[in-house]
Amino acid sequence: MAINVLGYGVLQSKTPLAPYQFKRREPRADDVVIEILYCGVCHSDLHHVYGDWPSRYPLVPGHEVIGRVIQVGDNVTKFKVGDHAGVGCMVDSCQHCQPCQHGLEQYCEAGNTLTYNDHDRHDHMPTFGGYSEKIIVTEKFALKIAPNMDLKSAAPLLCAGITTWSPLRHWQVNESSRVAVVGLGGLGHMAIKLAKGLGAEVTLFTRSKGKELDAKRLGADHIVLSTDARQMDAVKGRFDLIIDTVPTIHDINPYVNTLALNGTHVLVGYLGDLDPFLNTLPLIMGRKSVAGSVIGGIAETQEMLDFCAEHHITCDIEMIDIQYINQAYERMLKSDVKYRFVIDMASLKQNK
Amino acid sequence: MAINVLGYGVLQSKTPLAPYQFKRREPRADDVVIEILYCGVCHSDLHHVYGDWPSRYPLVPGHEVIGRVIQVGDNVTKFKVGDHAGVGCMVDSCQHCQPCQHGLEQYCEAGNTLTYNDHDRHDHMPTFGGYSEKIIVTEKFALKIAPNMDLKSAAPLLCAGITTWSPLRHWQVNESSRVAVVGLGGLGHMAIKLAKGLGAEVTLFTRSKGKELDAKRLGADHIVLSTDARQMDAVKGRFDLIIDTVPTIHDINPYVNTLALNGTHVLVGYLGDLDPFLNTLPLIMGRKSVAGSVIGGIAETQEMLDFCAEHHITCDIEMIDIQYINQAYERMLKSDVKYRFVIDMASLKQNK
Repeated sequence: MAINVLGYGVLQSKTPLAPYQFKRREPRADDVVIEILYCGVCHSDLHHVYGDWPSRYPLVPGHEVIGRVIQVGDNVTKFKVGDHAGVGCMVDSCQHCQPCQHGLEQYCEAGNTLTYNDHDRHDHMPTFGGYSEKIIVTEKFALKIAPNMDLKSAAPLLCAGITTWSPLRHWQVNESSRVAVVGLGGLGHMAIKLAKGLGAEVTLFTRSKGKELDAKRLGADHIVLSTDARQMDAVKGRFDLIIDTVPTIHDINPYVNTLALNGTHVLVGYLGDLDPFLNTLPLIMGRKSVAGSVIGGIAETQEMLDFCAEHHITCDIEMIDIQYINQAYERMLKSDVKYRFVIDMASLKQNK
Repeated sequence: MAINVLGYGVLQSKTPLAPYQFKRREPRADDVVIEILYCGVCHSDLHHVYGDWPSRYPLVPGHEVIGRVIQVGDNVTKFKVGDHAGVGCMVDSCQHCQPCQHGLEQYCEAGNTLTYNDHDRHDHMPTFGGYSEKIIVTEKFALKIAPNMDLKSAAPLLCAGITTWSPLRHWQVNESSRVAVVGLGGLGHMAIKLAKGLGAEVTLFTRSKGKELDAKRLGADHIVLSTDARQMDAVKGRFDLIIDTVPTIHDINPYVNTLALNGTHVLVGYLGDLDPFLNTLPLIMGRKSVAGSVIGGIAETQEMLDFCAEHHITCDIEMIDIQYINQAYERMLKSDVKYRFVIDMASLKQNK
């Protein structure tokens, strides 16, 4: 029998998030039922609520979910009741295509099933996200959380963490790599920590001098003011990989000039036209690449979580009650958060 | 003592090529003196003569040079008098930087020495190209030509060949690769032959139906009319590597859509702004890359020449006398050549 769940959602775009009661499926044999303890607040949640991106309503956001397993289906082997578990941006995929076969469910050819704003591929019920009491997910898409992890600050690893981890791993960052990060927000601060954890020399590109101290605290070896032509010139040809987390339109040409031979500029935050025009001259004369990357596969997400547990890497967060969520969105628009809001889902009990 | 050499050159831009007498250096201990037998005509020769690109005058073009060694310096070990030898786009590099140490002289950090339109890095004499009787070059930058090769049709391998070979090798094309080629000119027809030689499935993108038969003859497995939306849609997500040889401004977005997961679109012909804007959505949602590549290193050029000798790969050429060169340029502007003009340098004797 379907389960009644309380969450925070919207019935249409551009309305404030408010308590919303909805149904989740009756758990299947391979499902785990997770009582949600914490949920990170991603910028994409805001885009869906505000209607900036194509969205299906009613909508309950949230894809940085950490909780406790309270029920397991008969075929579940990876989890038992009482375990901590995480859910990220996907809750299912076709499991058959080449990318799925290679652990690249984020690039599933049939389209993966998103944690919210999607439909379950078996029963076609709408998917609802982690701003809620419980989530039901096949164990294949539930992540194990190491016992020593701080649960609340681990939540944003499920999106901000894996989104930056995946390109760092795909482009084989190691102790001899020089990595630069563009933008110091939820993704950028994780990119610094993870690249540093992998042993790389890490530089932050930023437009504001005020971020220097914080960037160093997070692990950056160097800070380059991207508005200072002399500083930009001094790092020409330097970086093997640039992780560009900026979610809005921006000129990437100055960054491409700072790539080393065979270097790659990876966009993870900005969907749209590269305006102003990307110039091919530095690409050709230095065999450089401009690429993109989206979240990461399930096995890779587990790898990242285990790496973070081992290296004591978590997100810098500000805890909020769910009732504060609309103000939190307004502050996010002003980049007024260091570096991720995480909702204490216990606060939802006040709406019961 | 410096050597008097007759060639064809220009004293200033936008004037016809005409006989021009100039001096080459006295051969050094590591130099070979090559009597030039054939020289390919590259599109970049035309850009320099016409003044489209920054150029130093007087200018003698030509960087697809094949000839016979007629003199060797005391320290030369790789060649003996009577050997056939080739010279491509570079005649020297710093030999010390990281790229040079790794056989990537085309990306020499100090700047390599171009075969023409440059200055020798030791005696600072201007460099002059292969539209001439003889060339003097350090043996390090002279290529060995296998005895069984057809010399005249091998000449364009020194630029058109290596420019397409290098990205095919760097992006590890093999029997399981799907390669597409954009544009069927000097570079494009070599890209088809070389990709086919490496065992890949090869597709030609073209705007004109008339090229179908020729593309198949050259080895293409498939031809896709890039102006036909249905044909373009049918190859969506298909290619591991696209070699884009188009030298003029063009929209690459439709090609990027035909890249497979992790696929790369490599520009080898067009220097300038990507106009219209490159859209990041397919890059991000398919971890695709847009990259560039320029010619190739010396060891890699030798590898390509040896591969071509072994696989009986040469260029499709039209032989001309040097006196025809200005008309040849006019025909190149109309793409009226299949697929490379090669100058029979014996014709230069008529100007003696």
